[in-house]
Amino acid sequence: MEEQLKIAQQALATANEAKFIANNIWMLVATVLVFIMHLGFATLEAGFVRRKNVVNIIFKNLMIIAIGILSYCFIGFNLMYPGVEGGFIAFAGFGLSNPAGAAGLIDYNNGTYTYFTDFIFQGMFAATCCTIVSGAVAERIKLFPFLIFCLLFVTVSYPITGYWKWGTGWLDTLGFYDFAGSTLVHSVGGWGALAGAILLGSRNGKFTKSGIKPIPGHSMPLATIGVFLLWFGWFGFNGGSVLSADPAAVSLVFVTTTIAAAAGCIGAFLVSKIIYKSMDLSFALNGILGGLVGITASADGVSISSAFLIGFIAGCIIPISVSFFDKIKIDDPVGATSVHLVCGIWGTIAVAIFGQYNEGIGTLTAQLIGIAAIGVFTFIFSFAAFYVLKITVGIRVDLEEEIRGLDIGEHQTMAYS
Amino acid sequence: MEEQLKIAQQALATANEAKFIANNIWMLVATVLVFIMHLGFATLEAGFVRRKNVVNIIFKNLMIIAIGILSYCFIGFNLMYPGVEGGFIAFAGFGLSNPAGAAGLIDYNNGTYTYFTDFIFQGMFAATCCTIVSGAVAERIKLFPFLIFCLLFVTVSYPITGYWKWGTGWLDTLGFYDFAGSTLVHSVGGWGALAGAILLGSRNGKFTKSGIKPIPGHSMPLATIGVFLLWFGWFGFNGGSVLSADPAAVSLVFVTTTIAAAAGCIGAFLVSKIIYKSMDLSFALNGILGGLVGITASADGVSISSAFLIGFIAGCIIPISVSFFDKIKIDDPVGATSVHLVCGIWGTIAVAIFGQYNEGIGTLTAQLIGIAAIGVFTFIFSFAAFYVLKITVGIRVDLEEEIRGLDIGEHQTMAYS
Amino acid sequence: MEEQLKIAQQALATANEAKFIANNIWMLVATVLVFIMHLGFATLEAGFVRRKNVVNIIFKNLMIIAIGILSYCFIGFNLMYPGVEGGFIAFAGFGLSNPAGAAGLIDYNNGTYTYFTDFIFQGMFAATCCTIVSGAVAERIKLFPFLIFCLLFVTVSYPITGYWKWGTGWLDTLGFYDFAGSTLVHSVGGWGALAGAILLGSRNGKFTKSGIKPIPGHSMPLATIGVFLLWFGWFGFNGGSVLSADPAAVSLVFVTTTIAAAAGCIGAFLVSKIIYKSMDLSFALNGILGGLVGITASADGVSISSAFLIGFIAGCIIPISVSFFDKIKIDDPVGATSVHLVCGIWGTIAVAIFGQYNEGIGTLTAQLIGIAAIGVFTFIFSFAAFYVLKITVGIRVDLEEEIRGLDIGEHQTMAYS
Repeated sequence: MEEQLKIAQQALATANEAKFIANNIWMLVATVLVFIMHLGFATLEAGFVRRKNVVNIIFKNLMIIAIGILSYCFIGFNLMYPGVEGGFIAFAGFGLSNPAGAAGLIDYNNGTYTYFTDFIFQGMFAATCCTIVSGAVAERIKLFPFLIFCLLFVTVSYPITGYWKWGTGWLDTLGFYDFAGSTLVHSVGGWGALAGAILLGSRNGKFTKSGIKPIPGHSMPLATIGVFLLWFGWFGFNGGSVLSADPAAVSLVFVTTTIAAAAGCIGAFLVSKIIYKSMDLSFALNGILGGLVGITASADGVSISSAFLIGFIAGCIIPISVSFFDKIKIDDPVGATSVHLVCGIWGTIAVAIFGQYNEGIGTLTAQLIGIAAIGVFTFIFSFAAFYVLKITVGIRVDLEEEIRGLDIGEHQTMAYS
Repeated sequence: MEEQLKIAQQALATANEAKFIANNIWMLVATVLVFIMHLGFATLEAGFVRRKNVVNIIFKNLMIIAIGILSYCFIGFNLMYPGVEGGFIAFAGFGLSNPAGAAGLIDYNNGTYTYFTDFIFQGMFAATCCTIVSGAVAERIKLFPFLIFCLLFVTVSYPITGYWKWGTGWLDTLGFYDFAGSTLVHSVGGWGALAGAILLGSRNGKFTKSGIKPIPGHSMPLATIGVFLLWFGWFGFNGGSVLSADPAAVSLVFVTTTIAAAAGCIGAFLVSKIIYKSMDLSFALNGILGGLVGITASADGVSISSAFLIGFIAGCIIPISVSFFDKIKIDDPVGATSVHLVCGIWGTIAVAIFGQYNEGIGTLTAQLIGIAAIGVFTFIFSFAAFYVLKITVGIRVDLEEEIRGLDIGEHQTMAYS
Repeated sequence: MEEQLKIAQQALATANEAKFIANNIWMLVATVLVFIMHLGFATLEAGFVRRKNVVNIIFKNLMIIAIGILSYCFIGFNLMYPGVEGGFIAFAGFGLSNPAGAAGLIDYNNGTYTYFTDFIFQGMFAATCCTIVSGAVAERIKLFPFLIFCLLFVTVSYPITGYWKWGTGWLDTLGFYDFAGSTLVHSVGGWGALAGAILLGSRNGKFTKSGIKPIPGHSMPLATIGVFLLWFGWFGFNGGSVLSADPAAVSLVFVTTTIAAAAGCIGAFLVSKIIYKSMDLSFALNGILGGLVGITASADGVSISSAFLIGFIAGCIIPISVSFFDKIKIDDPVGATSVHLVCGIWGTIAVAIFGQYNEGIGTLTAQLIGIAAIGVFTFIFSFAAFYVLKITVGIRVDLEEEIRGLDIGEHQTMAYS
């Protein structure tokens, strides 16, 4: 009798442990996938800039991940999830003198991953929002002021708006829904990008008296590697946002994410073919990213046919949006504002149209309030930060350096020799 | 007493759930790995073509995955696995108005992954067979007719022959064995590639009066990235074909797959060194791929020493086969027919020689019938499709465009600037 | 009653199986991640050499993984872990005529992964130590003698010193600690690199009468891809070295590894900025690698703040060490000795400073003895092997070939056309 009870209890404990281990593995695999998105951004942006600015953009992307991870560890994480452990400053794990303490934080019967897994997954996310900015301000921004902006952005701005929703703040209470961050990550990055691009002005030679001059990127293979790696990483970005390995939820997210990306590719292709009579590779590439950004807010709660429509529309938006920003003379070398800001807003609105959540979750009103509140906060924060940097240390390299290229100007080296 | 029963039952339910979660995670990770094979193919093929055709080959590979995934969702999946859900047309998930329905399809006590996981894993597989064709017809095929071919190939041809075996059709009943698709995926792609290469004819300047002119690819690093990513993805391609995370089976598959790839590299190296006195990088790269294609049919059912032999022989085949296709004047810029068709056939025959399956499974007769039936069907289908396209819209770019390059001709852009 | 016992027993068995499956999956995923480090090394080294030697370095890296895996299968594995199965020669699985035997080796109630998983994870590790050597001897070593060296290194030298610790040999008994191989893998590779670089001499034109001439690599994007892929793979290298999916341990390792890499980047950046007034990309890249090598010995047993310090100091070491090796005229084109040897030693010492292990584990004495014993053995072995090759077949290409490039000289081809 007692023996039987012991076996049953041991079985239950082991079963709970096995389930916890499986969930935690998935979150760690998702972390690794989100990590490689940083290589995706680096190669995408490097491919889309000119040869003379390649080292500079790569250097920026390296520094962003280093600064992003460390500052999120010191401040951002606890600012975004204040209830977790300790005060506002420093990821509590940072203060633990004995790492074995981490084990003590695990309760196999509750929760699906460890506290350290939580931090590292969120930390990889956080660093991506700066990388989005980096593409839009490429080929003309000074390195140091940009790094200071990044530090402020990932340490203060991103965690505050992130807290509003994912830290169970006021937007969460309101019913605003953003599954994996169409707004919280992508349009946040996009607003920062827009502020930077406005204050910097366009690259020399982009908007001339004789019209808008396309400035083609230096390596399409590099840009393509970037887009595929981003898609690859998005399986972790969206799939990990389930916050467990729940089979129904994660596999649904995989399907909606993939269908939206494929539909985005087709959408951008058709629109660019119809409007511009071209089969432009960069539109097709950005169409995939647009589809991915678009589905990010609702990947866990739409039908497959809705995922198709969300991605397809996002893809159609890309060529139109790129052309729009060109017309209002905002120069964005990689199309980051179109991909992350415009499609991020679209994806967040799409929650209200296609999302199948509980009553009061993701209503159009809640979504529009969330988009507006986070947009206004982030744009003002970014604009102010860039503006102060502009009037103090300056944010733009001089014309001579811009023409010569930032690789020589800032790094005394060249990308290829 | 009742309390004890409750604990025991809860323990069993949780244990089953944990097992299901773990199996499902593995299938999703395998899906992600197969996905990145598309970047592998894109970079491999881009590296092996000339600079002037790089954008074109990348554009094709992007479109293939987009078209492949979507058409498999709308038609292919249910055509291949008709019993699963709904009729022949449309992945049943596509019709589900509420994604929560996906959860209802899970029975933790039976099965090892969700219906959506099944679709997304199979969908990633399906798209690869077109990518194989893309390499062989590179540098001279028109984009639109090729995309129409892909649509037909992945929507109709691949699912029909796939059904014969994996959909438990007549070849399955016959005892034909093809673990992860040496024939069902790779030689299917290879037959399509052969049909296309024959009907297109060789590239201008390849077979001249003064002999066969090698046309070297424009970037060996890009091709190398491709081969490593394909090997990387093959852990999911073969490992996921276990259709669960069964530890003994998956770890055996990992070892046989790796040993065969390494042996293929050595085999191709030795043969090219002995016969051509060269240490040709492209042979070594294709030797790895040959070894991988070769082991794909039997990775779950051969000993380690057999895996070595299968891979080694596949590697030895590569330089000889490439030279053979050159001699019969079939121009295949990336060696796709040698890698996927010839080594695919070899791997399928190897099942009968080395495979350790149940009585009546994978006999030489069954294997040869399978190879022949699928070969005849696929070759005729592909030849007919390409032929109709040829006499209607035309499949080959004109000579002027071919000389100038398809990047300018079809996309008005260049890969590098 | 009996029914209840049966349910409880079945639940326990299933729970144990689920746990085993989850653990085994993680080890296989870690294997895949370590595998892709080979592409990381290939692209890093290719990026850091000149255009004329790219095919050669890639070819070497391909052969290394093929030879490494096969020779570890035939000899290395059992030499390193003699107790496992069979004698010294040949991975026991190699001899199994029936792969189903693998299943029989599993005891779900004991252990966390299969015997085949053990082999493939360790095999991927083994091959990396040769790849480290490859970078340091680049641009001037003959291919065949190098491959012979690799064969000896991975078949004999690496397993012997590996056995001393991981095979539970005398260093293990002594209390020497090296979690994932700062010494056992990285400085072992570094000592081989140093021996080779000394015996080969410097590249023509590196150390001239007018001073030390920098020889920049041909592609910074390629080198960057390499570093990101190495970081990506390191999640498997360190995370898999837990040898289970233990949630507390693996998630701690993820955090320490990431923090150290980021800190290494910042450290290298600051030191190179302060000392050389430059923002050199290659220092930042190698700083990341230095941080990763540094944390490898103690990733499972230090606090987060210690991980930061270990990585930061490793990063600071990089520019100083590179400059030191330049000064003593040891020419290392990719900085492998600084990254893997110097930071490997630092990381192994750091165990004694920051590590939180049981009494008598990782004391400074034990760590220094381990570093010295493995260093002396490996350096003598490598020096002797290279020396015998030098006085017999020769190890250095002639000056004319070096100037013309090894791609033409050894492979009659070029990396780009």
